Amino acid sequence: MKHFKHQHQRPKKSSLVVGRKAVIEALQSGKNLDRIYLQATVHGEVIEQIKQLAAQQQIPINKVPVEKLNNLNVSNHEGCVALISKIQYQNLQDVISFVVERGETPLLLILDGITDIRNIGGIARSAFCFGVHAIVIPDKGVGALNEDAITTSAGALEQIAVCRVNSLMKAVDEMHLNGIKVFASEMTASKNITATDFTIPAAIVMGSEDKGIAPSLMKICDEQFKIPMTGDFESLNVSVATGIILYETARQRTAV
Amino acid sequence: MKHFKHQHQRPKKSSLVVGRKAVIEALQSGKNLDRIYLQATVHGEVIEQIKQLAAQQQIPINKVPVEKLNNLNVSNHEGCVALISKIQYQNLQDVISFVVERGETPLLLILDGITDIRNIGGIARSAFCFGVHAIVIPDKGVGALNEDAITTSAGALEQIAVCRVNSLMKAVDEMHLNGIKVFASEMTASKNITATDFTIPAAIVMGSEDKGIAPSLMKICDEQFKIPMTGDFESLNVSVATGIILYETARQRTAV
Repeated sequence: MKHFKHQHQRPKKSSLVVGRKAVIEALQSGKNLDRIYLQATVHGEVIEQIKQLAAQQQIPINKVPVEKLNNLNVSNHEGCVALISKIQYQNLQDVISFVVERGETPLLLILDGITDIRNIGGIARSAFCFGVHAIVIPDKGVGALNEDAITTSAGALEQIAVCRVNSLMKAVDEMHLNGIKVFASEMTASKNITATDFTIPAAIVMGSEDKGIAPSLMKICDEQFKIPMTGDFESLNVSVATGIILYETARQRTAV
Repeated sequence: MKHFKHQHQRPKKSSLVVGRKAVIEALQSGKNLDRIYLQATVHGEVIEQIKQLAAQQQIPINKVPVEKLNNLNVSNHEGCVALISKIQYQNLQDVISFVVERGETPLLLILDGITDIRNIGGIARSAFCFGVHAIVIPDKGVGALNEDAITTSAGALEQIAVCRVNSLMKAVDEMHLNGIKVFASEMTASKNITATDFTIPAAIVMGSEDKGIAPSLMKICDEQFKIPMTGDFESLNVSVATGIILYETARQRTAV
């Protein structure tokens, strides 16, 4: 398995892999790619090969108009450009196995529909502070975890394992198979966070502030909890709520 | 005293009071002003009167070049423009007296050197959720709590009492005279937040992420505490840290 903890490198300027051959080589060599931009109108054997390799490695493909590629200001893109990732994406099962082998109690964080880069950065920072083993994000619907995301995370996104999965539902199934209980943060839940036991192997699902957790995902979660509030108010910022939940988790685990 | 809780009005477009006479009238009628821009080169009796009235009401005066006023795109500013505040600033002693009279245990939040509008907005949101009675900010060094601040606070800044003081040191003295213990969040403190008693009348001082709490202010705080972290990492985002501290305070107060 790949090494997945504590990559202490500094953020570098975003870089690109340009052209079909170069992208195939990058894919074949296991280079860390954030996503691949494919011109919507390109077809053929080489393009199919790129799609297959990308699918195997769970690298998202964005179909884009040619203008998008032209605007990247690179020559001879042949309808195909890949973004090199500053984040070392990890395989979920590898992370879980590694944590269990070390004798630690898994603590995972699942982000459903959280797209704001500043929120993701803040969440990564809290996750690293409170010993989260991996952040799990979907490969679609989340923007590129770029330089801005890394900056707002104060570098935490480079130091924590990030698992990018093509289905959060499948990721939860995988956690269940590994004996991990999946908790959903939901402000309408009846159970208080303080009455919730986070000392067992746990994953916590956070939804976006406006939409919450997707109903299909909520259905396969094992338990819901809420953060009790005294003020009569809508809700906390999602990054703050995540920080509070991870603090409570750490508090419970340390007190044991 | 002024009514200081739950102003449920909607954010309005920022508005201005233009010209010396209008500003004096606004000051005399107790209109809620965020700050007054005075052209650096203006002098005279009327200007002195404006300065006196502003000082009495703790409204900051910013001396600015004439270009700044011209750029506001108003005619006949006469070197003097005031910004109407969307926030109803409150007197600290009034807030404390009101809370005590209601039989509640005061909980105040002091922000020292926190200037980022998004952080202030997020902090106000958490403060409202967890029943903070007032946020105390200095009248200098904090930008205008404008439309952006109110938006990032999801409206909480309009619903919570904000006390703007010309000296945080004096504000702490005032709290001490009212029997309020002043706690400082400091990551190098030896005492853990979980071992800190927030069930008594309490004020919590938060410093900025880069500079922390000013040494002179720290000196007159009664107790320091830290949020324990498992990860070997710099620090949490200040808005997240504040949320965690207020959660812990509410947890302790509810458990009692």
